Parts: sequence; structure tokens; C-alpha cells
Amino acid sequence: MTTSNAQSMAYEAISPTKAPSFPLDQWYVAALSSELKDKPLGRTLLSTPMVLFRTADGQVAALEDRCCHRALPLSSGTLEERGLRCGYHGLLFNGDGKCVEIPGQEKIPSKAKVTPYVVCERDQIVWIWFGSQAHPQPTCAPPAYDVHSNGKYLFDGDVYHYNAPYQLIHDNLLDLSHLGYVHLRTIGGNASIHMNAQMKVESTDNVVRVVRHMLNSTPPPTYTAAYPFKGNVDRWQEIEFHVSHLRIWTGAVDVNTEAVEDPERGGFHMRGFHGVTPETETTSHYFWTMATNPIRDPQTTLEKVIEQTVLTFDEDKVVIEAQYQNMCRFGGRPMVDIHVDVGANRARKIIEQIRHSNC
Amino acid sequence: MTTSNAQSMAYEAISPTKAPSFPLDQWYVAALSSELKDKPLGRTLLSTPMVLFRTADGQVAALEDRCCHRALPLSSGTLEERGLRCGYHGLLFNGDGKCVEIPGQEKIPSKAKVTPYVVCERDQIVWIWFGSQAHPQPTCAPPAYDVHSNGKYLFDGDVYHYNAPYQLIHDNLLDLSHLGYVHLRTIGGNASIHMNAQMKVESTDNVVRVVRHMLNSTPPPTYTAAYPFKGNVDRWQEIEFHVSHLRIWTGAVDVNTEAVEDPERGGFHMRGFHGVTPETETTSHYFWTMATNPIRDPQTTLEKVIEQTVLTFDEDKVVIEAQYQNMCRFGGRPMVDIHVDVGANRARKIIEQIRHSNC
Amino acid sequence: MTTSNAQSMAYEAISPTKAPSFPLDQWYVAALSSELKDKPLGRTLLSTPMVLFRTADGQVAALEDRCCHRALPLSSGTLEERGLRCGYHGLLFNGDGKCVEIPGQEKIPSKAKVTPYVVCERDQIVWIWFGSQAHPQPTCAPPAYDVHSNGKYLFDGDVYHYNAPYQLIHDNLLDLSHLGYVHLRTIGGNASIHMNAQMKVESTDNVVRVVRHMLNSTPPPTYTAAYPFKGNVDRWQEIEFHVSHLRIWTGAVDVNTEAVEDPERGGFHMRGFHGVTPETETTSHYFWTMATNPIRDPQTTLEKVIEQTVLTFDEDKVVIEAQYQNMCRFGGRPMVDIHVDVGANRARKIIEQIRHSNC
Repeated sequence: MTTSNAQSMAYEAISPTKAPSFPLDQWYVAALSSELKDKPLGRTLLSTPMVLFRTADGQVAALEDRCCHRALPLSSGTLEERGLRCGYHGLLFNGDGKCVEIPGQEKIPSKAKVTPYVVCERDQIVWIWFGSQAHPQPTCAPPAYDVHSNGKYLFDGDVYHYNAPYQLIHDNLLDLSHLGYVHLRTIGGNASIHMNAQMKVESTDNVVRVVRHMLNSTPPPTYTAAYPFKGNVDRWQEIEFHVSHLRIWTGAVDVNTEAVEDPERGGFHMRGFHGVTPETETTSHYFWTMATNPIRDPQTTLEKVIEQTVLTFDEDKVVIEAQYQNMCRFGGRPMVDIHVDVGANRARKIIEQIRHSNC
Repeated sequence: MTTSNAQSMAYEAISPTKAPSFPLDQWYVAALSSELKDKPLGRTLLSTPMVLFRTADGQVAALEDRCCHRALPLSSGTLEERGLRCGYHGLLFNGDGKCVEIPGQEKIPSKAKVTPYVVCERDQIVWIWFGSQAHPQPTCAPPAYDVHSNGKYLFDGDVYHYNAPYQLIHDNLLDLSHLGYVHLRTIGGNASIHMNAQMKVESTDNVVRVVRHMLNSTPPPTYTAAYPFKGNVDRWQEIEFHVSHLRIWTGAVDVNTEAVEDPERGGFHMRGFHGVTPETETTSHYFWTMATNPIRDPQTTLEKVIEQTVLTFDEDKVVIEAQYQNMCRFGGRPMVDIHVDVGANRARKIIEQIRHSNC
Repeated sequence: MTTSNAQSMAYEAISPTKAPSFPLDQWYVAALSSELKDKPLGRTLLSTPMVLFRTADGQVAALEDRCCHRALPLSSGTLEERGLRCGYHGLLFNGDGKCVEIPGQEKIPSKAKVTPYVVCERDQIVWIWFGSQAHPQPTCAPPAYDVHSNGKYLFDGDVYHYNAPYQLIHDNLLDLSHLGYVHLRTIGGNASIHMNAQMKVESTDNVVRVVRHMLNSTPPPTYTAAYPFKGNVDRWQEIEFHVSHLRIWTGAVDVNTEAVEDPERGGFHMRGFHGVTPETETTSHYFWTMATNPIRDPQTTLEKVIEQTVLTFDEDKVVIEAQYQNMCRFGGRPMVDIHVDVGANRARKIIEQIRHSNC
């Protein structure tokens, strides 16, 4: 209930006056697989402007987004059989960043190359490795996310740009008590039930797990629109924080019909994937997918769930960007913690520790 | 006719390179009463972001615009019987800035509060006290402005945001000779009559009074639209500068029918209230009302006068913002004074003195 | 083929972190004659905000764009018989910058004046002299450009504003090999023919001349739209770089019918004038005209050529502004030269030398 020193430090660190860095030796989300088709994609990740594209064999490549000749962004170039061609004087680069053609010139100087980055596609997500100096190459495989390849679920998603630093998005996702105030129109439900729900917080190995159960509560609009509940429901919210992303499994069953803590529970499910990748110290990319288990009209139900999810995430964006803008206006003032902040504060502590271990 | 040192200093002070401060121990206009209804209003006054709202008993309150929990602007919250509720996690604050509820939590920590400010509503104007360290509490009552409650006049008004420091608005209002160049379409009239009008400037007790009479002159478009003048008119302009606002009483009677200097004169009246409150060192709020004494079709006449006033004040805004932008482009260069600058220069001297006495 | 030191230095100089200056003792383009009619024109040239206007006798004048009284831009004033009148309090300035009237005031103080600049109109172009301290007055006549007054050609033009420093526009114009990648829709033609065209580069007296011939090549869309070519063509590109502007004479004749290097050649001509005047260290004005020699339907042909030219120059603007923005994102990183950069690098060396000789 008081402002802990650790918390104050964490908030100080993301104030605009003192530059934060990011945890390194991590796989971050660079893109959703669906974003990479026949055009190069320019995107800044962890303050590094890069171009992402598929080579002719379908592999994803990531290069520094700057032609080595006259600095045009390669992301404004065009994809060809042999790679990515710059849109100014036509230099051609392969997926490793090597220049393989300079039009009208036979010899290609050895300096003619751009920096490549380590990317890996898995379960419909494109991951990028940001290593410390000690670990420029990955020390592990990118995270699996089998919800995307599991036949039980349908999913869709999108990428949002945030004018706010990444940890404010973590805070928001780790504390779903805001649903009762911010998301009344969609997934909210009764505010006091949210605020009074029992919350269990555990953390091991840089993962924080927050579980909340709201038994015998009114199903919110999104739930009743997607599933034929009979009346009140037992709701669960299971939030899993990983350094570069969160997995949030929420849902409900008819009241008193099933054990809500059993992973094999039925009822209505919403499984969210939330990749939070810093763009810069003050801006972020938010990659999300939402999966559901439609029991009828699968495509219609998915569309309904996505439509509601978009409304919900739009509301979060408004709140978080307003919050950050106000933090900038007021400078690094202390914040008063309340009961719902436990999970978010643990996540901040983990990021603090990794950042310092990367020094 | 020459650039006095005092004047140069004053202009230097509002150049963007050297930060000006504002006179303290003053009542400034925070809002027009009509702005505060059923929603909180976020507004930055003297570089202080605050939220203004009415409590359930109709009193106006002003608080720091930042929830003490996670810094969301309270101005994006909602008004309830007991106060203002934050739109993120639902903390509730009363008009004194005390947190009176944290949803889901019994104990409210003593730190859970936000700074309140001293506000007072009088004659349809909401005033805020900005005191020096020596005078955090008001040393006097807020100014009266009985034109707003006097049955003889009807009035309406608006709030303009200026990308210019407050003293440029004072300059503009204290020198109505610009009417002949800037406001030909509305209240201007003949430029040379304006420029050659006799001007009397007096100052006592931090008030500057500028009086100009333009006898036997053509009535300008706004005047003839609102009043059945028979031909030429005797016009008066009485400008009263106070540190935080100006009162400008202009009008005309048929030529040679009345003493224009008599406060009981008849004819057509326009009585302007002009609250000029710094938002920041380089931007301002301009709160204005215009009152008139309709002799027929009161509502129609008021609408006509307000419509013309809006046109006029829009023209001033264009000129003043262009002037400030140009001052920024050129830096703190000296300015050459001319005869019409006497009143404005006295006002600048008063502000200079108060600012230094507040140090 | 390697990054020469001189080249690296040049690029460093225009990076946003190290302020570049401009060559002095030059005539720069201030305006096209067609821009100056009955209104004053505000324009910043070499970081100097000025107002350009015609006096009653048709002469062009240029003054500091700031009234000496209260700093309003004079460019928002109005033109009268005796000069330019400020739009705030009506001070009137003649073409020499002298205040000739202060409304309502008899004596005009000697300080009441604004700085005049040296301008000269020639061949439909308004030139302005920017001299070093040693040469405040012109040391030569402004450049002649008789294409504008030669009956053989029709021309039209426009002024573009660039968010990029001036030398990036020089680079672009001195290397027409980019036509094959950037301008395929208009004047491009086959990319590899452009890249493989023989190029001759000469320089004398601060002028760089680049000549390229593309014999027996397919005429690009703009050419076939404007001229009845029978099939393939012999194309020429003659680029002449002067410190403040470029002259580019391109065109084509039916293959094997004429000597393309003969200035008296027939066929289809496009003669471009390209005035590149720094606005600030990071932004530029690009004044262009395009002249052609219509063999039928003169006005229709001119319109077609101008329409195509606009498309082409719009494409260049997109590329150059993206290039500069990317240079800013990546900071002053070295660039790798290729074969087509010879002409542009010579121009950069000339500018470097003049800049240092002006110190």
C-alpha cells in the first residue's frame, strides 16, 4: 500500500528525463507472420530501424533499414528473386545483408553491405533476438505459442503503435482490475467484483503469474454476445508475464458447473497473446492476437470476439497514452501503490534485474 | 518615440530564450462559469495542469490533474455524488483532493491525495488564486464584475487558446489604434481617425486607464448593424488594465447629442471583459465576454454583437500569433516604440515590478 | 568505388548534428518572376526571413520580414503606391526598407527602418545576392538564362519546398542514373541502359558538366507522349552544375539521324532550370522551370511536358526527403560510393572549397 523504493525507481527509469534501456538476451516480437507478404516492412525495434521481408524461399530476413550507398530506407525498395532492391540507384541486397548487384558496375566493394539481424519465425510469430555483447547469438530457441497452431482455437490479431514506454503496457495487462472502469462496454462487468476478486500472484524464473477468480458474477457484454450462458458465471483470469510478452487466458463457465482452475475447463475462452516490444525508450509496438473456442458459427463468433477485443484494446491505448503524457507533464513524481499493483511490481523488478545483469 | 530600456527589458523577458515568470499574489481567471457543468475540465494555468469541476453542492473545485496512483489525468474521470473518480482504477477524490475511496481496499493510505487549489466563483467568472510563497492564501477577494449581473446588459463569451505569451494580448487590448488596420470589417472604421484620436493615459495602483474619443466619426459596421444611428457618431474607448484582466467599455452616441465621457451616457455600448491567463510561458488562455445594451430585439442584437466580436477576436488572434512566431524567428531584437504604445508600456512596467516584488 | 575522405566529410557536414553553412558571394534564386504579382511574398532564404514584393514601378524589393515596431511579419501587410504597409499599426516601408509613414505621428524616428537585401530580376528569375563580409555588394551580374527569353522554347515552372538540405538535391540532379529506378512512369526508360550509359564528367571554374548518351534506346513515356518518334532513339543528358543552380538539357532524336552532341540537334528537347536555394541548414527551396520545343500544338505539348515533369519531381521529392530523414535517424554514418557518384562528388568538393574560402 505504500510506495516501495523499488517501484519508485522503476517509474523514474521510464520518465523521459532519464533514458531507460531494455532487457537484452531476449527474443522480442518483430512482427506477426501475417504482416510479411510481398512487400518489405520498415519497423524500428529497440531503437534500431530495420526492414523485415521474406526472401524467395519464404524465410524471414531482417536488415538495417539503410542502403549503404546513399542511405535511402531499404523498406521503400522492392522485393525480387534474389533479394531486396533499393529504390534509388538499384543496389540489390540478399537476406544476409550482402550487396549482390550494383547496376552498371562490375566490382562490388566489400564495404557494400548492411547489418543483418537474427530473426526466427515460430507459431505465426516472427521473433528477433536482441543480445547483449556477451550473447550476440541466441542462447535459446524463441518461445513456442501453440495456441496459434492448435485446432481447438481460431485467432486473429493486429499491431498497435503506442506513444508510451513498454512497461506501462505490462502494468495494464498485469492488473485486470481496470476492466471495471475502462472496459465497461465490452469485457468489464461489475467494477466492485473486479476490485474485490481474490488474486494470487506467483513468480519463478522471470515469469509472473497472476490468477483471479470472479465466481458467480454477471457475464460482461462480450461474453454473452459470444456464448450461450444461462445466467451468472464463474470467471477466471490467468495472466502470465514473460519479459517480452504476456499470455492471458480468460474465460467463464456457467456458475457452479466446473472447476474454473482446471485447464481442461469448457465454457467460453479468450486466449490473448500480447507481444510488447519497445520501439524507442518512449514508444512501443503492441502485437496482439486473440484466440477463442467457438462452439457455433466459428467465423462469426471469431469476428465478434475480435471486434470486441479491438474496442477493448483501443480503450487501453487511450488510457495508457494519456497516462504517459501526464507522467511527462508532471515529471518523475512518486506514485502511491494499491492492492492491485502486486503483479505489475514483480514484473518491474524482474526487468530491473535483467537490465542490470546486462550491463 | 524611442525604444526605452524598460520596454526592451520587457520584450526580452518574453522572448523564448529567457524564461519569464508571471506576477503572483493575483486572482487569475480559471474558467467562465458556463464552462463547468457535468464534466470535469482539464486546463493548464500558470504552467500548472489542473482539473476543474463542480462538486455535488455546486461549488467549484480545482485539483492537480494527476491521480496519485498511476498518474492518469483526473480530467478524464467521471463526476459522482462524492467527488471525481479516476478512469483507470477508480480512486475517488473529493473537492479538497483527499482520496475517499480505493475500490477493493479498505485502508486508504494518508499519501493518497492530490493538491487542491484555491478557487472562487464570482459574477459568472471562476477565479483562481496564485500566491507567492509568502501568500499561499488570498490576500483579497476576487474582483467583482457586475456587468455580468446587471439587468441592463446581455452578454455571452468564449475561451480562446493563444500560441503567444500573455503580454502580447495586453499590448493588443491596450492599444485600440490597430482597429483601423486589423478590424476594418467589423469595429474598425477610419484608420486615420483611430490613429489621430486623442488619447489620455493614467495609471494608479497597478491599474492603467486609457481613454480615447473619436468625435464626429463614421460608425463602423458592427455599430450600424446593432443600433439605429442617424449619421456620424461620437465614439469612446475606455480601457482599464488590471494585472490579470482588462475591462474595455466602448460605444457611441449620435454626434453632438451627449457627453461621451459621462458614464450615464446612452447610445450603443459594448462592454468587454478580457481575462488573460498564462497557460505556460509561451501560451495563453483568453477568456472573454461581450455585453451590450440592446434597445430592440435583445437576443438578435446580442447574437449580432457576439458574431461581430468573434470575427474581431479571430483577427486579433491571427495577428498576435503571427507576431509571436516572428519574434521567435528573429530572436530578442529591439523594437521601436510609437505614440500609441504608452498604455501598453505602462502595463508592462507594472507587471515587471510585481514580478520582481514576488521574487 | 570506395568512400573517399572528402566525400565522407561532405556528408558529415550536412548531418543535423554539425551545422553546415552555405557558399557565400553567390547569386541565389529568390523567386520566379511569376510569383511576384500584387501581394508581398514571405520566404526564408539562407536562414534569413524576408519579404519580397514589387514596388509601384515594377522593381522587385526584398526586406527583412519584420516590422521594426512590434515585429509583425511585413509579408502579412498590403502593397500600396508608396510601398508595403504593416497589417498591425500601419507603418509604411518603401523598397529600401525606410519607414515613410507612421499613422498618427509626424516625426519618424531614424531607427524606424528594416534591412533591405540586394535583389535583381533577369530572364524571369529573381536573384538575391548573399555576400560574405568582404563582399556585401555583388561582385558580378546575376546569371543569364536565355532559354526563358528564347522564342524557340515554351516553359513553365513551380517552387517546391524540401525537408532536406540543398546538397541532396544537387546529388540527385547530377546523377540521372536514378531515372531507371525512381522515374519509370515518366522519363525513366530502361534501368540498365541508364546505369550502363557512358558518362563524361568535366569541371572548370566551379562548374561541373556531366554528359551521358544513351544511344538506340527505347524512348520513355514522356518522350513518346510529346513527340512523334519513329522507334528507338538516341538520347542525351547534359547536366551543368553551378553553385546555386543547375541547367539540365535532355532530349532525343530518332536513332542514327543526328549527332546527339551537336547543340543544334533537332528532335525533342527538355531544358530544365533548377535553382536550389537553402532555406535553412536542413530545408531547401527548389525553383524549377521546364522548357520544351513543341513541334505541334505548342500549348498542349507544354502542358503534357509540365504534367510529366511534376510527376517526376514529385517522385524525387519523396525519395530525397526519405533519404534525409533516414540520414537523421542513423546519424553521420559513412556512405559507400559507386560509379555514378563522380559528378555529385565534384560538386560537393566545389561547395566545400567555397565555404572554406568564405570563412
